[in-house]
Amino acid sequence: MSDQMFRVALASRPSGAPEAANFSYEPAPIPVPGDGEVLVRVHFMSLDPYMRGRMDDAKSYAAPVPLGGTMEAGGVGEVIASNSPAFKPGDFAFGMFGWATHGVQPANMLRKLDPSQGPITAALGVLGMPGFTGWHGLTEYGKPKAGETLVVAAATGPVGSMVGQVAKLAGLRTIGIAGGADKCKLATETFGFDACLDHRAYETAAELQQDLSTACPDGIDIYFENVGGKVLEAVVPLMNDNGRIPICGMISWYNAGGLGAGATSQGLSAPAIWRSILVKFLSVKGFIISNHFDRYPEFLAEVGPKVASGDISYLEDIAVGLEHAPQTFMSMLQGGNMGKQIVKVI
Amino acid sequence: MSDQMFRVALASRPSGAPEAANFSYEPAPIPVPGDGEVLVRVHFMSLDPYMRGRMDDAKSYAAPVPLGGTMEAGGVGEVIASNSPAFKPGDFAFGMFGWATHGVQPANMLRKLDPSQGPITAALGVLGMPGFTGWHGLTEYGKPKAGETLVVAAATGPVGSMVGQVAKLAGLRTIGIAGGADKCKLATETFGFDACLDHRAYETAAELQQDLSTACPDGIDIYFENVGGKVLEAVVPLMNDNGRIPICGMISWYNAGGLGAGATSQGLSAPAIWRSILVKFLSVKGFIISNHFDRYPEFLAEVGPKVASGDISYLEDIAVGLEHAPQTFMSMLQGGNMGKQIVKVI
Repeated sequence: MSDQMFRVALASRPSGAPEAANFSYEPAPIPVPGDGEVLVRVHFMSLDPYMRGRMDDAKSYAAPVPLGGTMEAGGVGEVIASNSPAFKPGDFAFGMFGWATHGVQPANMLRKLDPSQGPITAALGVLGMPGFTGWHGLTEYGKPKAGETLVVAAATGPVGSMVGQVAKLAGLRTIGIAGGADKCKLATETFGFDACLDHRAYETAAELQQDLSTACPDGIDIYFENVGGKVLEAVVPLMNDNGRIPICGMISWYNAGGLGAGATSQGLSAPAIWRSILVKFLSVKGFIISNHFDRYPEFLAEVGPKVASGDISYLEDIAVGLEHAPQTFMSMLQGGNMGKQIVKVI
Repeated sequence: MSDQMFRVALASRPSGAPEAANFSYEPAPIPVPGDGEVLVRVHFMSLDPYMRGRMDDAKSYAAPVPLGGTMEAGGVGEVIASNSPAFKPGDFAFGMFGWATHGVQPANMLRKLDPSQGPITAALGVLGMPGFTGWHGLTEYGKPKAGETLVVAAATGPVGSMVGQVAKLAGLRTIGIAGGADKCKLATETFGFDACLDHRAYETAAELQQDLSTACPDGIDIYFENVGGKVLEAVVPLMNDNGRIPICGMISWYNAGGLGAGATSQGLSAPAIWRSILVKFLSVKGFIISNHFDRYPEFLAEVGPKVASGDISYLEDIAVGLEHAPQTFMSMLQGGNMGKQIVKVI
């Protein structure tokens, strides 16, 4: 076995949308596991919108990736060396290995996978962080009730498709928003949305709002927020009294240069949104899934069997080659993926 | 008894701050109670910031006052005629009689008061809608825990002073914000706030934020929102993770012309506030107290004895004469009152 691996480092911080020059694909020595540590050869890694935030130096809920540091990511792979009784070579595990072909982690930071139970890539999407994010946010803060109406954007992504399907199984009317006719077809045909609107077909929030209003004749009770921007602006006037808005992200604003006073809200002012929360008695709740791992076993117990039975569908978009991860990531931020974005590392 | 009463009607809708010309003080015939109805001679009426919203024609959580209609208000007074077995002349009652010397209401819309238990004006403030608003919002959505820090503006008003005192009794550090040195003295000396900042002493939100930061060395866990504007902008960056923001009003924006896209947020953008909710895992909840009267008996049972014992203090600012109600109201919207604003009608 060679002692050389490859990784993608943060070469410079982007201003606005990331560019190729912000990333550096480079060789590095394979790390040596210490006491209680495990060395994993990464087979697949996850690409997720939150990684854009880690590229900024701004204070957020997680520390930024340092310049020259390996980009952060979850991955699944095979144990090739272990100094822990909990793992042996040949085991499969999920861990935060970064954008890299190899990674060392303490054994207690890894989760063992059973490849006989299904594709290990599921641990990156439908049964991993994104699926868990959708399920937790919907059940804990969305409080879905049969007969209500839910709206979620990025409806064919791993978060949105979980939210839509869990809501549908709970008896809600589900309206997706996605980028392009192909994704909208996927949303309704594969993920069971009652309708899906193509946000690219609308120049303004007002136009989107009009069709959304038609698709939601009884208003919107739950808006699962993962995009912000035009969709948020279109949704807010349609929210019903006592509506709920779990917020797990706002991808449309991630490239907006820090989201400060200079970021455009496309007509939605802070007073207007604050007033809507007041006069519609809305519950708005931000969360990051890493604070809620206590519910992960409950999630697996409830959703795992439904994935196995096909009651919950999922779709993966697998790019090949770590060296293409930056390009794939940049494309994903523009909606270029179809389903959960994964990179096949080997 | 004369058959003439007086009332204040909405003569025209304000654009921005209300002016005297928006109100009309005029005589009217005393209404005759129908079956099951009660005629009350109003002794005291309440003036509250929410009434500003009722003067606009905008869709809100309550219907606007129609042009020519009597301005809305709660009041307390003496029953002078009754067609209901529930009330007899000489009884005292609280009801929504409007800005008027007399009012007729169905008996089931009135609450009987016992003048031997304390001043009937308490039903307009500390033990009425404002005090109940503060207690409900704090206990239900603020979820105060001993050792945490709470911030509330309009700290000497009937909502803010209730919030501060209930939080203090629960073991929180309480920081008030009020307009002027006299109010700040009142906040700390009478209402037990640990500190109070005079928002008039700060030109910008950044300056206010700096002193607020000093007053809240451990950050802010609960911001009880009743003002919006500069205070909100100063508070948001100081909120702790998992903080709670109950919203019962936003008086600083009430005169901002409908709070639409044109309203200034003084530097606070919608994306910035939305991002703060996400990255600090905030819970933001709008409410109107009229949806929560099921908790009113619990409120009275808990807070009533503390008011009687003096553990919870209150202060009333009583203007004399219904004809001065418009001027008193306009002054109150600018912070001209010291304590709960009441008008002595007779």
